[in-house]
Amino acid sequence: MATRMALEDMVDACADIDAAGFWSVECWGGATYDACIRFLNEDPWVRLRTFRELMPNSRLQMLLRGQNLLGYRHYQDEVVNRFVEKSAENGMDVYRVFDALNDVRNVRQAIAAVRRVDKHAQGTICYTESPLHTVQGYVDLARQLMDLGCDSLCLKDMAALLKPQPAYDIVKAIKDDLGQDVRIHVHCHATTGVTLVSLMKAIEAGADVVDTAISSLSLGPGHNPTESLVEMLDQTPYTTDLDEARLISIKDHFAKVRPRYTQFMSAITGVETEIFESQIPGGMISNMESQLRQQGAGDKLKEVLAEVPRVRAVAGYPPLVTPSSQIVGTQAVFNVLMGRYKVLTAEFADLMLGYYGATLGERDPEIVEAARVQTKKEPIEVRPADLLEPEWAKLREEADALEGADGSDEDVLTYAMFPGVAPNFFKARPDGPVNVGRDPAEVAVEQQNQAAGSGPVKGPIRYSVSMDGKDHHVTVERV
Amino acid sequence: MATRMALEDMVDACADIDAAGFWSVECWGGATYDACIRFLNEDPWVRLRTFRELMPNSRLQMLLRGQNLLGYRHYQDEVVNRFVEKSAENGMDVYRVFDALNDVRNVRQAIAAVRRVDKHAQGTICYTESPLHTVQGYVDLARQLMDLGCDSLCLKDMAALLKPQPAYDIVKAIKDDLGQDVRIHVHCHATTGVTLVSLMKAIEAGADVVDTAISSLSLGPGHNPTESLVEMLDQTPYTTDLDEARLISIKDHFAKVRPRYTQFMSAITGVETEIFESQIPGGMISNMESQLRQQGAGDKLKEVLAEVPRVRAVAGYPPLVTPSSQIVGTQAVFNVLMGRYKVLTAEFADLMLGYYGATLGERDPEIVEAARVQTKKEPIEVRPADLLEPEWAKLREEADALEGADGSDEDVLTYAMFPGVAPNFFKARPDGPVNVGRDPAEVAVEQQNQAAGSGPVKGPIRYSVSMDGKDHHVTVERV
Repeated sequence: MATRMALEDMVDACADIDAAGFWSVECWGGATYDACIRFLNEDPWVRLRTFRELMPNSRLQMLLRGQNLLGYRHYQDEVVNRFVEKSAENGMDVYRVFDALNDVRNVRQAIAAVRRVDKHAQGTICYTESPLHTVQGYVDLARQLMDLGCDSLCLKDMAALLKPQPAYDIVKAIKDDLGQDVRIHVHCHATTGVTLVSLMKAIEAGADVVDTAISSLSLGPGHNPTESLVEMLDQTPYTTDLDEARLISIKDHFAKVRPRYTQFMSAITGVETEIFESQIPGGMISNMESQLRQQGAGDKLKEVLAEVPRVRAVAGYPPLVTPSSQIVGTQAVFNVLMGRYKVLTAEFADLMLGYYGATLGERDPEIVEAARVQTKKEPIEVRPADLLEPEWAKLREEADALEGADGSDEDVLTYAMFPGVAPNFFKARPDGPVNVGRDPAEVAVEQQNQAAGSGPVKGPIRYSVSMDGKDHHVTVERV
Repeated sequence: MATRMALEDMVDACADIDAAGFWSVECWGGATYDACIRFLNEDPWVRLRTFRELMPNSRLQMLLRGQNLLGYRHYQDEVVNRFVEKSAENGMDVYRVFDALNDVRNVRQAIAAVRRVDKHAQGTICYTESPLHTVQGYVDLARQLMDLGCDSLCLKDMAALLKPQPAYDIVKAIKDDLGQDVRIHVHCHATTGVTLVSLMKAIEAGADVVDTAISSLSLGPGHNPTESLVEMLDQTPYTTDLDEARLISIKDHFAKVRPRYTQFMSAITGVETEIFESQIPGGMISNMESQLRQQGAGDKLKEVLAEVPRVRAVAGYPPLVTPSSQIVGTQAVFNVLMGRYKVLTAEFADLMLGYYGATLGERDPEIVEAARVQTKKEPIEVRPADLLEPEWAKLREEADALEGADGSDEDVLTYAMFPGVAPNFFKARPDGPVNVGRDPAEVAVEQQNQAAGSGPVKGPIRYSVSMDGKDHHVTVERV
């Protein structure tokens, strides 16, 4: 639902969001750009400029996958620079920059670019657990990020695995080591039901900002509810200074919008704590289940979930977040269905060979060798983007040649990140945005009609009718 | 749903619950007794004995409304004694005894009875907020309860209003004042989304036991999820020692059962924080809304919610819990619809006159006088039950006269508490329990048929029918 909501369903809430007193408004980037052009026929740059106009007093914030930008491969540095420049020009203020492997080399260029355009660069620690991940390790990572010139840090818990005590310990250790004035934001999902407590402990340890979502869009695999956080801090030494009347308006607005997007909502509505074991984000488990069912192996889910931590160990304990979660998860499925490492996916082979960057732990040499043999590619130690040739000019040329492309850098970036989707989007763009939300009543009636096959015959349907002993050929069509 | 689930849908989980390591299993009392005989044609005493048999290693726990037992009026002391004796005999171990007004005189008899049968007496503090309610006030109440000989205390937050800091302050103050070995249980609902944090702070302050529900039956107006609590304490100095494999089995069991009871589930699935203002439990707000709509005053809800705290002040700031929540809420509706205190409900008049017991604050003398005039009853200062004549013999006589009554004390108690429902129940009892759960697929088809009016065409519908090459205009209508 986070990626499917139409801009027009958000605009009426912007004045309240702008005045509610948030430190920043995360409103762009992540998977939303992709969804805009793929499903909504909406230009993400128009969306950004709209937010800029409607929320003049707010810091606009985005999630940026480091050297991957918002795409699924590494880009040459000039593309990274251009993306940051254009997004800043269009109104972005705060860049939360992360790398799925916590390899700082993959965020260095983006952070430098953000600093050059004088915007807020937030270095991100992807939180995960493994025998190698320690509080001191996170402090070291924090120091490396601050050394790159970050304005703040984010402790990002994408899978709701951050428990209260580690939240406290990590935030406290970073503040103790790097100084109390190092700004730390904490980002937790709500899936496991425990992370509002983690936010409390993070705040007690000195966290400066924590992420929430308005209650009517909160919980499940989303975030903890803003209003609950406000109430949580009542009578403590901490306060949010948020405007509660504004929060109620925002809540009411999205409570009305939400039912239009039921079809895009996660099946997880309560809490899911079994993911502490596999560390696979909740949403992915259902994907895996359907992958397995398609292979006639629907009964193997437990086996796959048990295999995931082993695959993760072989790969050097990467955090599981886009794209590493998919890469590790799919290899675990292959291992269970075809035998361990009998077949490597192309992406898993690349991960083993260093083409996504460095992992904290050593990667299993035997599987690295298998990857080398299967792909005929050599393992690398350098920053993956160092292997890339300049590509901006070529991307511009290709983009400009597309029907409907407008010659702007923004269009080149759209094409660069989503070369498979951009051509259709540019062509269809003049038709304007598509609102994929549906009137719940209408959906219900449609489902009923489908399920029950009810309603009058539409036809034409051919019948053989025997009337008074005589056969007739009858065609019926509604008029 | 908590009151509508059939015993047969619970029994398969009992072995796991019994072995999971809970301090106690709350499984009887509260509103479940009423629902058993009203909706399920199930003898609550059979249910209790079944639990006793299926969970031999567990402390069985119940909620008891003090001098009201499980009914809606005050009972003479002998009835209270009999109830406690019979329930202990049938297997009850832990009695959580509360009074809606926190009037200890109303729990004294029940607690003494529990002590006499050598079971665990838990004195309950109903948590509420008002200008008169202070931490010290709760400590004083705790001391009074312990002075009655309670084995433990419960801080009961029936409306999810207990925020983290007050949770910490109250538990800590009670422990500091009465001793660290005073056992404190904390019971919070989850409605406002903030109370898992309150449980954390209560534990840090020394709480011994906290209440949860298995995740597949948790959240909304229910309780916080057990599994999340277990994870919350990981790496802290606290642990639950619960068996996680058993928890998963219990979760899976009720995840399968839950869809059968969708029709009985609360509309509140996310969080609701606006209730901090009115203190009206979430479930009651929807009741009020429908009350108001029936009076053609559906637009007055906000006015009523604003009136509730004023009515509560006039009544001396009672906590809002069954039955005080209904009494105060309904009077607020009357005030808005008919003018302030133009008409008093019989129950509100009784509350003002002291017939439910004493409130912490003074009751508004003007309204007390109005209640006196309207009801022609005098205000009282004594414990309400002191005004009652012995009634056991009469209750037995009336119960024994009912068709289907079996002459047992248990049947007398059922009749005593639910004189309106018991006669039908005794008559129908031989037919055995009714499972009101429904196959979700079956419910869906039924709703579809109703909504779409499917099945055969009703018409009139016009068709163009071609028969043997010749066109006809045909109108079809069901007759």
